Amino acid sequence: MTTQLGELVERFGGRLVGNPNIEILGIAPLTEAAATHITFLSNPKFREQALQSQAAAIILSVADEELMGAGCQGARIVTNNPYAYFARAAQFFSALQQIPVIPGIHPSASVDPTAHIADSATIGAHVTVEANAVIGEHAMIDAGCFIGRSACIGANTHLFANVTFHAQCEMGERGIIHSGAVIGSDGFGFANENGVWIKIPQTGRVMIADDVEIGANTSIDRGALADTVIENGVKLDNQIQIAHNCHIGAHTAMAGCVGVAGSAHIGKNCTFGGAAMVLGHLTIADNVHISSGSMVSRSISEAGHYTGFYPLAKNAEWEKSAAIVRNLASMREKIRALEKIVKTLTSPNIEKNNE
Amino acid sequence: MTTQLGELVERFGGRLVGNPNIEILGIAPLTEAAATHITFLSNPKFREQALQSQAAAIILSVADEELMGAGCQGARIVTNNPYAYFARAAQFFSALQQIPVIPGIHPSASVDPTAHIADSATIGAHVTVEANAVIGEHAMIDAGCFIGRSACIGANTHLFANVTFHAQCEMGERGIIHSGAVIGSDGFGFANENGVWIKIPQTGRVMIADDVEIGANTSIDRGALADTVIENGVKLDNQIQIAHNCHIGAHTAMAGCVGVAGSAHIGKNCTFGGAAMVLGHLTIADNVHISSGSMVSRSISEAGHYTGFYPLAKNAEWEKSAAIVRNLASMREKIRALEKIVKTLTSPNIEKNNE
Amino acid sequence: MTTQLGELVERFGGRLVGNPNIEILGIAPLTEAAATHITFLSNPKFREQALQSQAAAIILSVADEELMGAGCQGARIVTNNPYAYFARAAQFFSALQQIPVIPGIHPSASVDPTAHIADSATIGAHVTVEANAVIGEHAMIDAGCFIGRSACIGANTHLFANVTFHAQCEMGERGIIHSGAVIGSDGFGFANENGVWIKIPQTGRVMIADDVEIGANTSIDRGALADTVIENGVKLDNQIQIAHNCHIGAHTAMAGCVGVAGSAHIGKNCTFGGAAMVLGHLTIADNVHISSGSMVSRSISEAGHYTGFYPLAKNAEWEKSAAIVRNLASMREKIRALEKIVKTLTSPNIEKNNE
Repeated sequence: MTTQLGELVERFGGRLVGNPNIEILGIAPLTEAAATHITFLSNPKFREQALQSQAAAIILSVADEELMGAGCQGARIVTNNPYAYFARAAQFFSALQQIPVIPGIHPSASVDPTAHIADSATIGAHVTVEANAVIGEHAMIDAGCFIGRSACIGANTHLFANVTFHAQCEMGERGIIHSGAVIGSDGFGFANENGVWIKIPQTGRVMIADDVEIGANTSIDRGALADTVIENGVKLDNQIQIAHNCHIGAHTAMAGCVGVAGSAHIGKNCTFGGAAMVLGHLTIADNVHISSGSMVSRSISEAGHYTGFYPLAKNAEWEKSAAIVRNLASMREKIRALEKIVKTLTSPNIEKNNE
Repeated sequence: MTTQLGELVERFGGRLVGNPNIEILGIAPLTEAAATHITFLSNPKFREQALQSQAAAIILSVADEELMGAGCQGARIVTNNPYAYFARAAQFFSALQQIPVIPGIHPSASVDPTAHIADSATIGAHVTVEANAVIGEHAMIDAGCFIGRSACIGANTHLFANVTFHAQCEMGERGIIHSGAVIGSDGFGFANENGVWIKIPQTGRVMIADDVEIGANTSIDRGALADTVIENGVKLDNQIQIAHNCHIGAHTAMAGCVGVAGSAHIGKNCTFGGAAMVLGHLTIADNVHISSGSMVSRSISEAGHYTGFYPLAKNAEWEKSAAIVRNLASMREKIRALEKIVKTLTSPNIEKNNE
Repeated sequence: MTTQLGELVERFGGRLVGNPNIEILGIAPLTEAAATHITFLSNPKFREQALQSQAAAIILSVADEELMGAGCQGARIVTNNPYAYFARAAQFFSALQQIPVIPGIHPSASVDPTAHIADSATIGAHVTVEANAVIGEHAMIDAGCFIGRSACIGANTHLFANVTFHAQCEMGERGIIHSGAVIGSDGFGFANENGVWIKIPQTGRVMIADDVEIGANTSIDRGALADTVIENGVKLDNQIQIAHNCHIGAHTAMAGCVGVAGSAHIGKNCTFGGAAMVLGHLTIADNVHISSGSMVSRSISEAGHYTGFYPLAKNAEWEKSAAIVRNLASMREKIRALEKIVKTLTSPNIEKNNE
């Protein structure tokens, strides 16, 4: 099944330079695209590859069209944001190849009679849906998922196989949860009494807004008394831990293995590199960007890019630098001692000059 | 359903200042508590909030009662450990709202005829229990769990949905395992022969004592030849990795994303902040506290608080400091050179003074 | 069931010093082995224990046999690589105790009629196998696993309970995947348009070669356009995250909690300590060894051992060193200032000497 270039431009905008009747079969990277593919140029360092590309058409920026469009071998779609255009075009071609879903409840699923499953929803094999849960229109709950009592899954949301979504928690529309994710497990709350931990019941919920994606084996704990909140458009990668009572602002994205401790309040449009960690009860402003592997140990009130990881070195060199880091205080003392001596050395000199 | 203040004091102790007949509906934070709630003050920085609180009663310490009890608007329960008291009261109110569990085996569960399931236990939908496994009295095995051959789950222990508990492993009484946790997977053991890894069978077990809580998506590997051991009252948060042959002492608590490498022996009453890591074959004494994000690369024989993570900074500042950290050895050389020169500069001066 | 020492040597080679008719029941560590056990000595620091061991036989190196073989109480198997020999012997004894598997499809499994399941394969309870999936000879798919549409599991591969293996992905022969692992979840790919993330469909696969082992709760994302590739003999521990389009070279091993960001290309025979992290789009040469807790933030073209983590210290000492690390630039300035002054101090002196 092919699509004409003109139809893409009608759907997604942009200015077409070339023949609108060219038939496109799919999308491919610059170097692999053949005469039936569309490709894209979003990073200037691939301009040379774009000039060489065999693609039927290239999605590129206004600047790149002016600079080198004429040198390309195929047609061009000129747009302000070629990468976003690529994403939309890729979604379009991917949807064409999607195997149609047949709504309904698999006979092996265990659905409580009080649960409300929309007619257009799909419930897979070995799924469990407990009492009073609500599954929205066109939602897909794949094999082996667990939906707890009174939980709510919004319309057009897709839970991949083996997701656990606990009681009372809510997920908005057009969301995605990947396999192995656990939403609404108990927060980690204990009072210590004479060395023994006494459990504090976790009675809050996890409230997830619309257009949120949650990665494989990620866990989001329910709140202690209040709720854990994930705002619109948040994207969480795999293996992430969000502790109880956190609040993640809209359109914030976190890469794999990030951890956020309890009651952290994270702003909108932030990004967190892989394995970044945020301590509990901190407040992070909007538009803060944390590098991979960095530990956020204090609140951040100013937008910007923050980093904190030990630089990699050959082990022998690291051994040296680490030994010095351990003794930086003594190095500082040495410098202070030197400064003192040098001061006494220079003072008489000055006096001498003044003599 | 409400409870009289006097009944709470009868159950959990403490000295009541106020009317024992006040009816309490539940527990709430200081700022959200209404006239039907009890609340608590355990952190001195919230004293002002306590004075403003609308709660029917406040749980607080002897010192706070003396300092400000009379200024509070409601009754007080005076106790040595208000936070622990809060935990117990919260458990009490939470239990009142618990939906009663109906014991028995869900018809969709797959239970081997040789497994021994206590009559008061509950086995959820799509659970698998293999041969000779034992499930104790009042244990709850929620939907989708897997209990391997000859595994043992103690009385009153609760496995949330989609837990995997492998063959021969044992869990004590009153434990909790959260969804997605895997207990008894193979340890990571291989012998290298000419660049190829040869698997070492992992034939030990995981032995978990009483009152242990294990978080969502946490994994605990079985031992290689001997067992992996988790002592009484240990609390593990989500996304934790405990490798083969580790030994975790009683009442030690670990926050999310902690990793413990093989054969580490960790003492009692330790705490580990989120994403702390412990290398293999180390011994950690009792009462050791490791900060979040810290790598424990040597044994610790002395109780205390240990830390090791790179401090966060604006990225531009980190770039500078990281470049210097890489070259600390050259900085040390410069200081040594300066010390040498300064010494030669000062020595003649002293001689001159002696002249 | 016992095995004669001579049979072991016939199977696995090595030179036997002692009676080939000695009956061996199993394998045990040096200090725990009894007269029916075989044990091994691979680390020189345990020589004293070997001399004391009650084992019927010890597997040891040529050098150790010469040094101390005569002093041992039992027989010896002399070999170049005692640890690898131990691994093979342990596999042998472990297989003797394995409960025989009965091939076939559990009645509670949900297998699409178009899936191809080898007659000798075993499909456990509550397993889901989707359309056109292929399960090879003697493969074992334990309870609760999910095998997506057109996925392929090679002969003699074992998926432990509750593994999720997504559509179109492929796993070779003799592999092992531990519980909770997720293979083929979507990569984390989004285009940002005016602060909103637009999903890039992830249409690549995960292609896993032969003899690969994947740990509990580990996740491997499918590629965006191309595939994620895991070569022969790779061993991944628990809680690992492999992002989309990564390429992991043959016989590379990664310990628990490692994270590898998108499109990283890692060589053969590398090792990664626990919680090591690799940034995206990097290239790591063959035979690179990364210490635990180290962040790899640039490509590595030279084999060797690399490290980068902040050394642990008592918290009070860390507070001091961390404060200085934050201000290393000012320390460098002080040294430069000192060098300048000292230079002016020494220059006239030299001139004076020349006078």
